[in-house]
Amino acid sequence: MNTDVTHDPALTSWVESANAADTDFPIQNLPYGRFRRKASGEGWRIGVAIGDEVLDLKRVHDDIPWSDALQALLRPLADGDLNAFMEQPSSQRRALRQMLSQALRSDSPLQEVLSPCLVAQSDIEMSVPCRIGDYTDFYTGIHHATAVGKLFRPDNPLLPNYKWVPIGYHGRASSIGVSGQQFRRPQGQTKAPDAEVPSFGPTRRLDYELELAMFVASPNKLGEPIGMAEAEEHVFGLGLFNDWSARDIQSWEYQPLGPFLSKNFASTVSPWIVTMEALEPFRSPFQRPEGDPQPLPYLDSATNREQGEIDVTLEVWLQTQAMRDAGTSPHRLSQSSFRDAYWTVAQLIAHHTVNGCNLQSGDLLGSGTLSGPAPEQAGSLLELTQGGKQAIALPNGEKRTFLEDGDTVILRGFCERKGARRIGFGECSGTVLKAG
Amino acid sequence: MNTDVTHDPALTSWVESANAADTDFPIQNLPYGRFRRKASGEGWRIGVAIGDEVLDLKRVHDDIPWSDALQALLRPLADGDLNAFMEQPSSQRRALRQMLSQALRSDSPLQEVLSPCLVAQSDIEMSVPCRIGDYTDFYTGIHHATAVGKLFRPDNPLLPNYKWVPIGYHGRASSIGVSGQQFRRPQGQTKAPDAEVPSFGPTRRLDYELELAMFVASPNKLGEPIGMAEAEEHVFGLGLFNDWSARDIQSWEYQPLGPFLSKNFASTVSPWIVTMEALEPFRSPFQRPEGDPQPLPYLDSATNREQGEIDVTLEVWLQTQAMRDAGTSPHRLSQSSFRDAYWTVAQLIAHHTVNGCNLQSGDLLGSGTLSGPAPEQAGSLLELTQGGKQAIALPNGEKRTFLEDGDTVILRGFCERKGARRIGFGECSGTVLKAG
Repeated sequence: MNTDVTHDPALTSWVESANAADTDFPIQNLPYGRFRRKASGEGWRIGVAIGDEVLDLKRVHDDIPWSDALQALLRPLADGDLNAFMEQPSSQRRALRQMLSQALRSDSPLQEVLSPCLVAQSDIEMSVPCRIGDYTDFYTGIHHATAVGKLFRPDNPLLPNYKWVPIGYHGRASSIGVSGQQFRRPQGQTKAPDAEVPSFGPTRRLDYELELAMFVASPNKLGEPIGMAEAEEHVFGLGLFNDWSARDIQSWEYQPLGPFLSKNFASTVSPWIVTMEALEPFRSPFQRPEGDPQPLPYLDSATNREQGEIDVTLEVWLQTQAMRDAGTSPHRLSQSSFRDAYWTVAQLIAHHTVNGCNLQSGDLLGSGTLSGPAPEQAGSLLELTQGGKQAIALPNGEKRTFLEDGDTVILRGFCERKGARRIGFGECSGTVLKAG
Repeated sequence: MNTDVTHDPALTSWVESANAADTDFPIQNLPYGRFRRKASGEGWRIGVAIGDEVLDLKRVHDDIPWSDALQALLRPLADGDLNAFMEQPSSQRRALRQMLSQALRSDSPLQEVLSPCLVAQSDIEMSVPCRIGDYTDFYTGIHHATAVGKLFRPDNPLLPNYKWVPIGYHGRASSIGVSGQQFRRPQGQTKAPDAEVPSFGPTRRLDYELELAMFVASPNKLGEPIGMAEAEEHVFGLGLFNDWSARDIQSWEYQPLGPFLSKNFASTVSPWIVTMEALEPFRSPFQRPEGDPQPLPYLDSATNREQGEIDVTLEVWLQTQAMRDAGTSPHRLSQSSFRDAYWTVAQLIAHHTVNGCNLQSGDLLGSGTLSGPAPEQAGSLLELTQGGKQAIALPNGEKRTFLEDGDTVILRGFCERKGARRIGFGECSGTVLKAG
């Protein structure tokens, strides 16, 4: 049940662009990000997106005489330290959301003092939203796991542990960049199935992976698992995430300890974190397919079954160099939803910590590639092209099996539901440069 | 060729305990660590171990009028920030080593002013030596890989990529603790081979792994690989590392993406980082077994072949609760050497960055379990007990297949060579508590 006034779909803002039907950032969203005005020489600041603008929380903190409680909440944000705010209990995070929502609504008396705290999104650059201490990537996309498994084991695509264990592994935090990231095509060892020995060179099977990023809010201590009941309190919000993958490097290196250089050359995250509070109207019951085993007790709860999934529509768009040169807009490659993930956010937190592993504020958990049940809903080229065997055709006549130099991949995400205001995630884009 | 005066085996210190034959910390060593006086309420400081003492580099910086260049080098250390010092070029790091060596030698005129900067090691507590951004674990112990492979594939123990690719994967940085770490036996999902479904509970196959930790010195930028020629300039030094592993959780979870909860509940590192400069007298040529493939060019260099390996003797000692209660000293379980690793430090750095992955100062690279060629030189219980089938007997009559609650595992390491002063790594100990 949702009684949070910040979700009222009729709520509008005095920031006019926030009321446009197609904005990702209406007053019901209010995602957090880290920004600075372009070429300003200023330090990074924390802001909240509203329509085409950003509310600069340093100015909000500095210019307005809030209550002591709100000042204390705003202080880490004014210092540009999103992690210190993420660490707060969810009641505190909700209190700030409530304040911002009131201050930005059409009838707010604060419009005059807050207007100077707005910066146009076109005037800013953004960074990774917080310090990411550790990054874990999960494998919750059962349709992805099945499709990829089929390429290797047609008769037995899912491994026996898949429906019991939320499979995950550790990734590289240092090479995570923000939307707009450009990276060189990685080089590495590959070995063709029929080759005697491996060879070295630029990857020929460069791929994207359509994922969601979950950001950890308050931490847990080493040795103290987080149970299902409190799991979501430890999640700050979601972003878009592209786990770029070099498939030929991956297939040669990954046995027996998992992916390494095939993934850690770059990963791209969207600049805005959409909070769990903003996502509340878009929950849907957790539907485990009939005949599948019930989760072990440490991964199960009535609340999780009732409202475990979040229905985020996800899209992959491609703009090739030729398209950019011709002024052609990006082309949509596929669409899927986080609703189809096999494990919920709460289950991932409970699983990750059940052995006592300590999560820290700002840690990033990737969902794994989110493909839908239909083949055209695949979240990677590996699946869309059946392992590179079936090229896809683009509207301008170009074809792709895997990514080419100059390709820009753009992830988008949004939540839509009858009776709720649509909210969006902005973009997560990245561009492949030629091997250096 | 080694002309560094700091390696002169006849060099002695005015710190008397540094001249004892069995000390790990003679003047030829000078490892860095992060400490504070017990119950002092002071902040963490950086110090250098010398005999039974620590030279407090904050006091060294504050109390003595060094040249501007040395003051600048000491400043981050005086601030307790080892990472900022690790970041310096190796010429700078060598300059400070030279100064400290001169200041501590028997004939130094600085004895009087430096004496007050010493703190007894018995009066301090230590932390993890630096901020570890990312932690990577390699798999360079070919005898370990072969022995473990044999348990699963008796006829074909090594996978086809092993002699071509320095196999590695990402680990969890947040749960790395310093020597003295105590952790609860982790709980998790396991599935016996003959069980229908998995069950949940404390691991029954808890193991240690005898490893070396390599710490990254100066970073590289994303997209800019580090070639073999400069690779070692990017390594600050080595420590001891215990990659605790829950074998039953590992075998159920690790397909297809590698180890996760079976490893990330705790890892333990020694407090002192022995610098690459101190290790120089203990190099030995890289000896790849006859018939093995030559490394691909990006992993090969004449220098690497001539002086690629470092001969560090490594030991595992066990003290059970019963031994502690009876006042019995720890028992040595095995001894091996880093000399037997299949890949050198330089090769690991070159491989890790060849795809453009960016290393950062303070990152930790684990060597993987270092077992020797003989079965009794195994660096894990999994190997010593042949997968838990053959219990080992302890001198007090106890037996072990895997670790029991109350067991303390102590790793030790040292370098010995004719014509060189012996140096040691101190201890890396950790204790298993009962599941919570």
